[in-house]
Amino acid sequence: MTESETIAVALGDRSYDIVVGGNVLASAGALVAPLIRRQPVLIITDETVAGLHLAALRQSFDDAGIASEIIVLEPGEHTKEFSVFASLANQILDFAPERSSTLVALGGGVIGDITGFAAAVTLRGIDFIQIPTTLLAQVDSSVGGKTGINTSHGKNLIGSFYQPRLVLADTGILNSLPLRELQAGYAEIVKYGLLGDAEFFQWLETNGAALLAGDEKLRRRAIVTSCKAKAKIVAEDEKEADKRALLNLGHTFGHALEAETGFGSRLLHGEAVSIGMVMAFDLSSRLGLCTPEDAARVRRHLTNTGLMTGLQDLADQSWSADVLIDHMRQDKKVSDGKISFVLTRAIGDAFITDDVPLKDVHAVLQDALAA
Amino acid sequence: MTESETIAVALGDRSYDIVVGGNVLASAGALVAPLIRRQPVLIITDETVAGLHLAALRQSFDDAGIASEIIVLEPGEHTKEFSVFASLANQILDFAPERSSTLVALGGGVIGDITGFAAAVTLRGIDFIQIPTTLLAQVDSSVGGKTGINTSHGKNLIGSFYQPRLVLADTGILNSLPLRELQAGYAEIVKYGLLGDAEFFQWLETNGAALLAGDEKLRRRAIVTSCKAKAKIVAEDEKEADKRALLNLGHTFGHALEAETGFGSRLLHGEAVSIGMVMAFDLSSRLGLCTPEDAARVRRHLTNTGLMTGLQDLADQSWSADVLIDHMRQDKKVSDGKISFVLTRAIGDAFITDDVPLKDVHAVLQDALAA
Repeated sequence: MTESETIAVALGDRSYDIVVGGNVLASAGALVAPLIRRQPVLIITDETVAGLHLAALRQSFDDAGIASEIIVLEPGEHTKEFSVFASLANQILDFAPERSSTLVALGGGVIGDITGFAAAVTLRGIDFIQIPTTLLAQVDSSVGGKTGINTSHGKNLIGSFYQPRLVLADTGILNSLPLRELQAGYAEIVKYGLLGDAEFFQWLETNGAALLAGDEKLRRRAIVTSCKAKAKIVAEDEKEADKRALLNLGHTFGHALEAETGFGSRLLHGEAVSIGMVMAFDLSSRLGLCTPEDAARVRRHLTNTGLMTGLQDLADQSWSADVLIDHMRQDKKVSDGKISFVLTRAIGDAFITDDVPLKDVHAVLQDALAA
Repeated sequence: MTESETIAVALGDRSYDIVVGGNVLASAGALVAPLIRRQPVLIITDETVAGLHLAALRQSFDDAGIASEIIVLEPGEHTKEFSVFASLANQILDFAPERSSTLVALGGGVIGDITGFAAAVTLRGIDFIQIPTTLLAQVDSSVGGKTGINTSHGKNLIGSFYQPRLVLADTGILNSLPLRELQAGYAEIVKYGLLGDAEFFQWLETNGAALLAGDEKLRRRAIVTSCKAKAKIVAEDEKEADKRALLNLGHTFGHALEAETGFGSRLLHGEAVSIGMVMAFDLSSRLGLCTPEDAARVRRHLTNTGLMTGLQDLADQSWSADVLIDHMRQDKKVSDGKISFVLTRAIGDAFITDDVPLKDVHAVLQDALAA
C-alpha cells in the first residue's frame, strides 16, 4: 500500500478509524478483515461506482479470503426515497443476515447515507464499513454517523445517528470524479478552515488549486485535516446538541438554495454550501461581526478554485428572498421556530446564533439576487 | 391518583421511569408535563384503544395545559408493515416536529413498537412516552427499548433499540381487555418467575387466578415485579449481547408456532410463549437438566390459569416438527447458524445455550404433536 494516514474518531464504544491514502481500495480486504465477524459481507453500491471500482474492491476482498455479495442501486438522490429504502431493506434480508453481519457502503453520500441507515435498523443494528468515493463523502458524510433517507417533506428527515466500524478514504479514486464534483467537495474542505482553523484556510489559499489539479499528497493532507476537525467536533457533541451545529456553516443558506433548485444536479450540495458560506460571511460583515475584508477574502478564494459564490450562474431560476427564508424555516435544525445561523467573527472563528434579524438576512439575499 | 409505584430503569443518560398504578391515565398530563419540551405532543393510537381511552388521556393533557394532536392507526399486526410505517412517518412530519418534540404511544405492543421506531428515526431521534394498554405491553414491550416493524421476511426484522422517556402502566385500563388477552399477557409474567425468581412463581401459583379475576393490588405487584426483573436484565445488557436473551424463555419454540399460525389471532403471542415455556421445560427435563416434576408444575400452573400448554387446541392446523425447526433457524437470534435456546436447571434458574441436539428438540415437538 502507498502512504496512508489513520485518524481515530473517539466515541467510546462506537469509536472507529478513518484510513486516508492513495491506494487503500487495493488493501481494503486486509484492512477490514479484523472487523468481519460473519461472511459473506454485503457490498452496497450504485451502477456508476460499480463500473469504476467494484472489481478492485472484490478482488481485494477475495485476496483477503472475505466472501462478498453485492446489491447495486441506481445512482442519484432518488435512491434515498422511502420506497427504495424499503426495497433495499428487503434485499438485505434476502441474504439472511445475523447481528454480526457487515454492510459495506461503496459510493458517495447517497450510498453512504442509505447504507448506514439500513445498517442502523436491520435486526436493530448490524455493522457497516464506509468506502466513500467522492471528495464530499470523504471529508463530510463519512465522519460523524449521520445516516438518513428523504421523504416528500425534505432531505434526511428520517434517519439515525449510527457510526461505521471503519472508513476507508482512497484519494486515488478521486481521479475518476468530474472536476465539478471535486470542486463541490472542496467547498466542504474550505468550510473547516473558515469555521475553526485560519491557518488551514491560508494553506488552502496556497495549495487549493494544486490539490484540485491532482496532487495526491496535498489531497491527503486536506482530507486528513478536514476529517480531524470534524471528528473533534463530533466527539464533543455526537448528537448535535450544540457545538456540532458549527458544521452547518453555509448550510442554512445552502439548503434553502438546494430546496429551491430541487436538490438536483443543477446546484450540487457543495456548490450550495460555497454560495452559502459567502452569504454567511456577508451577513456577518453586515452585522459588524467580521470585517468586509474577510468576507471578500472568502469569496476570492472560492472564485479562484472555480466555485460558485453567488446566484449569477443560476440566473434563469426565478429567485425570491422571501421564498428562500421560508425554506430556512423548514430546516430540521429550527428550534422553537427560530432559524439557526452559523456566523463568524473572522476567518477561523465561527459561532452559532438564532438571534439574527430577518431583515438583514433578507438584505443579504437581495444583494445576491441583484448581483 | 390512587396508589402507584415507580420503577427506575437504569440506562445511563437513557434512564427512565415506569409508573404503575390503578388510575395513572387520569394523571398522565401531570406526570408527563416535566418531560415535554415542545408542544403539541403527538398521540399515536389505534381505533380500538382510541374509542376506550383517548378521551381520558386528552382530558388529562388538557388539564395539565399540554396541547396534543392525534394520529389514529388501524388495529392489528398489519399496522407494523413497512408501507404503514412510511405513511405514519409522513403523517408525523406533517406536524413539522422539531428534535425536542414528543410522541406518545397509547396502545398495545403494535402501537408501542411502531411509535417507538418512528420516534427513533424521525429527525434522527425525538422523544417518546409509552402508555401501554395491554397486560402484555405493560410487562414486556414497554421495558427495554426494543422497537420494530415487520417485513415479508418476518417480525421486527427492521427496528432500533430506543428507550422511552417515561412509561405509564395503568392497571385499571386492563379491565377493558378480553380475558384471553389478559391471560396471554399473564404468560409473560409467569416467564419472569420461571427464568429467575422461584419465589415469584410460587406467589403466582397462589395469586394468579385472583390477579386475572381483577384484584388490582395483586396486578400491580405482578406488573411491578415483572418490570423490575426485566429492567434489571436490560440494564446489564441493553443490546442483547448475552444475558438479555434469557428473556426469550419460551420464545424460540413460541416464535416457530406463531410463524406457522401466521402471527394472527389464532395463536396470540402470549399463548405461543405459554406453550413454548412448557416445551422449554420438557426439553430441559428430557436433557436431564431439570426434574420432570418442575416441568409438570409449570404445565399445571399455566393450565390452571386458562393458558394453552400444548397444540391440542390447534389440532386443525397441520403441524410438522421439521417445519417448526426450520422456522427456528430463521430467528434473528440465530448465531453462526446455531439455534439459541433458553433452558432451565429448575424453576427460577434459566440459562442460554446454543448446544442442543436437534434430535431432542425434534422429540419434544413430536411429543407435543402426538398429545
